[in-house]
Amino acid sequence: METYSKIEKLLIDINEKNPLVHHITNYVTTNDCANIVLAIGASPVMADAINEIEDIVSISNSLIINIGTLNDTKIESMIKAGIKANKLNIPVILDPVGISASKYRTETIKKLLKEINFSVIRGNLSEIKALCGIDSISKGVDSREDSCREGEKIALMAAKLHNTVIAITGAVDYISDGKKIITLHNGNKILTKVTGTGCMTTSLIGAFCGATQDYFLAATLGILTMSLSGEIAYDSLKEGDGIGSFKVKLMDSIYNFSIDDINKRGKIYEG
Amino acid sequence: METYSKIEKLLIDINEKNPLVHHITNYVTTNDCANIVLAIGASPVMADAINEIEDIVSISNSLIINIGTLNDTKIESMIKAGIKANKLNIPVILDPVGISASKYRTETIKKLLKEINFSVIRGNLSEIKALCGIDSISKGVDSREDSCREGEKIALMAAKLHNTVIAITGAVDYISDGKKIITLHNGNKILTKVTGTGCMTTSLIGAFCGATQDYFLAATLGILTMSLSGEIAYDSLKEGDGIGSFKVKLMDSIYNFSIDDINKRGKIYEG
Amino acid sequence: METYSKIEKLLIDINEKNPLVHHITNYVTTNDCANIVLAIGASPVMADAINEIEDIVSISNSLIINIGTLNDTKIESMIKAGIKANKLNIPVILDPVGISASKYRTETIKKLLKEINFSVIRGNLSEIKALCGIDSISKGVDSREDSCREGEKIALMAAKLHNTVIAITGAVDYISDGKKIITLHNGNKILTKVTGTGCMTTSLIGAFCGATQDYFLAATLGILTMSLSGEIAYDSLKEGDGIGSFKVKLMDSIYNFSIDDINKRGKIYEG
Repeated sequence: METYSKIEKLLIDINEKNPLVHHITNYVTTNDCANIVLAIGASPVMADAINEIEDIVSISNSLIINIGTLNDTKIESMIKAGIKANKLNIPVILDPVGISASKYRTETIKKLLKEINFSVIRGNLSEIKALCGIDSISKGVDSREDSCREGEKIALMAAKLHNTVIAITGAVDYISDGKKIITLHNGNKILTKVTGTGCMTTSLIGAFCGATQDYFLAATLGILTMSLSGEIAYDSLKEGDGIGSFKVKLMDSIYNFSIDDINKRGKIYEG
Repeated sequence: METYSKIEKLLIDINEKNPLVHHITNYVTTNDCANIVLAIGASPVMADAINEIEDIVSISNSLIINIGTLNDTKIESMIKAGIKANKLNIPVILDPVGISASKYRTETIKKLLKEINFSVIRGNLSEIKALCGIDSISKGVDSREDSCREGEKIALMAAKLHNTVIAITGAVDYISDGKKIITLHNGNKILTKVTGTGCMTTSLIGAFCGATQDYFLAATLGILTMSLSGEIAYDSLKEGDGIGSFKVKLMDSIYNFSIDDINKRGKIYEG
Repeated sequence: METYSKIEKLLIDINEKNPLVHHITNYVTTNDCANIVLAIGASPVMADAINEIEDIVSISNSLIINIGTLNDTKIESMIKAGIKANKLNIPVILDPVGISASKYRTETIKKLLKEINFSVIRGNLSEIKALCGIDSISKGVDSREDSCREGEKIALMAAKLHNTVIAITGAVDYISDGKKIITLHNGNKILTKVTGTGCMTTSLIGAFCGATQDYFLAATLGILTMSLSGEIAYDSLKEGDGIGSFKVKLMDSIYNFSIDDINKRGKIYEG
């Protein structure tokens, strides 16, 4: 299939190009995001000072904006960096972490969407629903509900509304550019028991966006890398292991991730 | 014994209620604190922006205030969040990290104690002594001395003085509400060789406080979870292992922690 | 050889003195830096609030200044802390992370070098070249080029220019005080695939600087500890392992590091 051969090429390209992925992100999951970017063959840089944000964007191949642990100074930097990236045609990826958890986050996302053109937005179903103005019961930064029909509908709707690629992650993942839709049926529930797997998925998407201009493909492969590596890591657990060992093996699996894993395990449905 | 059956119930309750634990904390140990909260069956949220602090507290089941890596903005958020939590009857847990290491920390703790009613305060012996105005030789954020009689006395005194549950952790742990006292004789010295085991213990206490109104019990079980998991993790180490493997196995043990571990290993003395 | 016996003594001294190592550093690698300092036998403290920076420096045995994730407030704290440390004869170690990645970083380093006397500066070749005003193609916070003759020349030049010990880390490491030069041929390429191994090396140097006044020796042993532990960790990897397992085993190896490792594997060339 065409998607598989494009994926194979992108896995080669990212290692050859070694894109630099600029993160303006939270202080909870930064270390894991940096390591996952290295594991997949790209290079991370974390920087949020307003005084250097344009310099750093200018040498980067993609920019990730993640709204966990926000503050006013960081928002200013996000906007400045996003506008600069748009000017330089550097893809910008948004992670609207816990968008409904506070009015401050909701308002910040509105501002960011107004000022910046995003190449990909990744969130869980309730976060992406919030982007469409649809209420959803949100608990902190996670959401639980999941309904296949609804996921497809919301992904398509949000992608059209914001003119971007939308990636909804959960038990089932949905990626849409407003026309096409891909559904992924991989992953393991234990991924929700490790903090930052959402942020890390966004970082993987950002890494792939730095190596191709096909952001729909980059979003698909980013999610696939995380969910398949999660499966592989889970399968290697032994008795007595828990989220400590799982997280180590997740990193290992991403470091060793290859097209073979996708050929063997990938459940990709194009619709 | 009554304590054991209450502990058993709380271990079930935390998984059913899945409390949301709001942290205003340092940037050194945040990731570990988030993962430990997930491992025990609760959900973490880290947020310190003054603009969203009240919204986040309002959807949370407990609030942890940890004074590592302080700054003026964060202190303002701590006070605002603490007052809001008090109004909503959400338990607030204090970790006075390195209280004697600087005048700034000492003064901050005074302010916090004046403005906020805490349900539990957890620290090492020298930190809790400082809360009682007793000088102690402090080295950075750790303390070394330990004397059983003294621990009991200080726990009782500090609990009465500040009208809260006091939890002193060390080679021996003391928990008191000003009347009752529990002494715990579990744990392993290697816990002091991993950064943030104190912060993580406070996070566990906060997680349990989100699932019961018996904060004395929550403090006891929080500490017990850490010290028994530390023992179990240590016992599983192989030749050549060190603090890297220990930390992974500590997370695993907390993820798999159950009433059986307490029945088998728990050294709980009620006095 | 004299160097070996001095190294053996320093490995004993650090465990006896248990120096307190104050870090003003980035929020990406803080946790790993704290754990590595504990692993080698010292104690970490991370603090950057201007209000407490002098108090914390005063109880510390060394101060590390790392310019990853800078901001104006932090720079002010760095300068205040550095000046205080100089007054108290506490060694100050600089890590000029990504110095050429932005004008802001370049200017900050100039300010720091003007205000503070550093005992050791550690960076990769392109970072140290930048300290000498020599342009180098920099990609984010890493550099790639390496040439043995050049490394020696630059280390000597930078040490003379800034009147300090210079430590250049890479495939080959160079340590110079402007007169002597030591070349180290240990390490493993996988160290570049884990974020923060540079910062962690600086933390190790800082830890050793807290236990001796021979900063040339401290820099040498700090680098040697990281590169030999990296070799040992790499050799213990099994099929399917990746950077997750490697990082765990790196921590283990540092925790278990001893003079035997140096005697067996050390490739130290004094020139």
